[in-house]
Amino acid sequence: MAKITIIGSGAMASACGKVLFNNNHEVIIYGVNQQELKELSMGMNLKFFSKQTKIPKFNTTSDLKLALDKTDYVLLAVPSKFMNQVYNQIITNLNSDVILINVAKGFYPGTTLPLHSALEKMTEDNPKIKGVVSLIGPSHAEEIIKDCITLVCSVSRDLELAQNVQSLFSNSYFRVYSQTDVIGAQIGSIFKNILAIANGILDAKNYGINTKAALISRGIGEMKKYTLYSGGKLETLLGLTGIGDLIVTAFSRYSRNFNFGYDFGKNGIKAFETSMTVEGLTALKDIYENVVSKKVIELPIIEALYNVVYKNRNFDKMLSKLLTRELKSE
Amino acid sequence: MAKITIIGSGAMASACGKVLFNNNHEVIIYGVNQQELKELSMGMNLKFFSKQTKIPKFNTTSDLKLALDKTDYVLLAVPSKFMNQVYNQIITNLNSDVILINVAKGFYPGTTLPLHSALEKMTEDNPKIKGVVSLIGPSHAEEIIKDCITLVCSVSRDLELAQNVQSLFSNSYFRVYSQTDVIGAQIGSIFKNILAIANGILDAKNYGINTKAALISRGIGEMKKYTLYSGGKLETLLGLTGIGDLIVTAFSRYSRNFNFGYDFGKNGIKAFETSMTVEGLTALKDIYENVVSKKVIELPIIEALYNVVYKNRNFDKMLSKLLTRELKSE
Repeated sequence: MAKITIIGSGAMASACGKVLFNNNHEVIIYGVNQQELKELSMGMNLKFFSKQTKIPKFNTTSDLKLALDKTDYVLLAVPSKFMNQVYNQIITNLNSDVILINVAKGFYPGTTLPLHSALEKMTEDNPKIKGVVSLIGPSHAEEIIKDCITLVCSVSRDLELAQNVQSLFSNSYFRVYSQTDVIGAQIGSIFKNILAIANGILDAKNYGINTKAALISRGIGEMKKYTLYSGGKLETLLGLTGIGDLIVTAFSRYSRNFNFGYDFGKNGIKAFETSMTVEGLTALKDIYENVVSKKVIELPIIEALYNVVYKNRNFDKMLSKLLTRELKSE
Repeated sequence: MAKITIIGSGAMASACGKVLFNNNHEVIIYGVNQQELKELSMGMNLKFFSKQTKIPKFNTTSDLKLALDKTDYVLLAVPSKFMNQVYNQIITNLNSDVILINVAKGFYPGTTLPLHSALEKMTEDNPKIKGVVSLIGPSHAEEIIKDCITLVCSVSRDLELAQNVQSLFSNSYFRVYSQTDVIGAQIGSIFKNILAIANGILDAKNYGINTKAALISRGIGEMKKYTLYSGGKLETLLGLTGIGDLIVTAFSRYSRNFNFGYDFGKNGIKAFETSMTVEGLTALKDIYENVVSKKVIELPIIEALYNVVYKNRNFDKMLSKLLTRELKSE
């Protein structure tokens, strides 16, 4: 039995907590939202799940020092934009050597590094951090919490660490594969959010499944280009963290990214008024600014989508422009 | 302007005919169903499309010799099981040198060869056949006929031939890419039908999107294994004929394969009573018998699905058995 400190009280924090609780580990949830913590201690999390959803009565606290006391694992379940702040607080409060488990996706705030890679870099000289492992794959918290069969990857450069976290989480409904292509896995999980936005727009504008498959396929081509440029492997894209995660995000109404795209397709820039975290929007901006606008690599769909979402260009015109490019090999 | 003889009067024959007609080619449709031919000559095809659907008033005939007279291209739009019979009739009636265009998928009847590869082999010594090209990709006829934006691949070992057919079909809404990985493209188009059946069963049994993405992702892993075994390329799987075609088939209610799976999930073997062509069923049997049962390669999902569909084994038990295999790397 290990002690796991979960940082965050949202949907994914609860879902991961339940898997670990079911696996007989000692789980404590740290958060700052008193209402959510109170609910979690009573076996609920009403902002994210219905009252009928069965959730363990978790140990919770808003005292970080207590949460981290003699812990074995720290699971980071906070949006990428808060990662910086949270990380610094954790480091100063640790009194044991831990493995960091990250379940967030996207780029580390203010850098061009994907989250896992940034955490790896920040922790490499810290003797208290044994290593960083990310859980990535097609997994909506809304289904994990209901014990639905879910397959994800335990991702780390260090295979032994990846296998350690694989054992920690695996059970009869939550099945974990180890994966050492850290770059490939992260790019898949970041890029798929952008394609989900595009698919949401197509859906809102009543484009058919042929057109959706077309845009997603060509989008995968750009994901491939960007993955190889970043040093990831083609094979990883074909797996759970690539196509698997893409399917679950781009074709599901659970996905905030798809829903943002749909809303944008219907209502234009008003869609930005939503307060939800849409990781794909940040990723789109980051990839456009860091590689496309600098002409490092050519990604026509990313460019078109950036112009539609951030520059208010006409979607249908951009799509038709994409389709009148020179005929070529796939 | 080229002359194209279309063999078959079904949905895909009509849809391809319309694209070619819109591109100002001379199109003649050959068929054996008098009712369908009569309707097509009046700009309808009511078995497949609503009365409102705009279809050209095609030249049609049930005289094969007339249909083939001085033609440049013969487009084969018949189910794979009729291919043998149709092919022999065509060969004896040709009076000009032609390019064969195939839009059917699956294995050639009575062989372990995918259709395109079988046609290539059969025609290699025939001076009247300049070559074989297949159109493969995410394309429901129901959407092509409405001029929906659709992207497919023109597939041939011979790049020049592929480009020839690419030019023939391409226009503002039907965009064609050339592709020379004949094996990879065909395996993708065959295997995706099997995964669509599996996804249909999951849907019928109310499994969530996490589980669907899981099974599809692991299924793609088996598609990859089978593609590499057959001599196809990994990269092709990431494109229109692989993941693209998979998305359009496994996640669409237009798909006969998905619908069969759904029906099977609800009603068991009664689903076989349908008269529709379900290519995935034949493919599942062929792949199981030719490689899995002979232990040439290990494909656990194919094996499980074969046992469920053909041996009446319990789906949920097979799924849970798949998931209790040893923990491993992706």
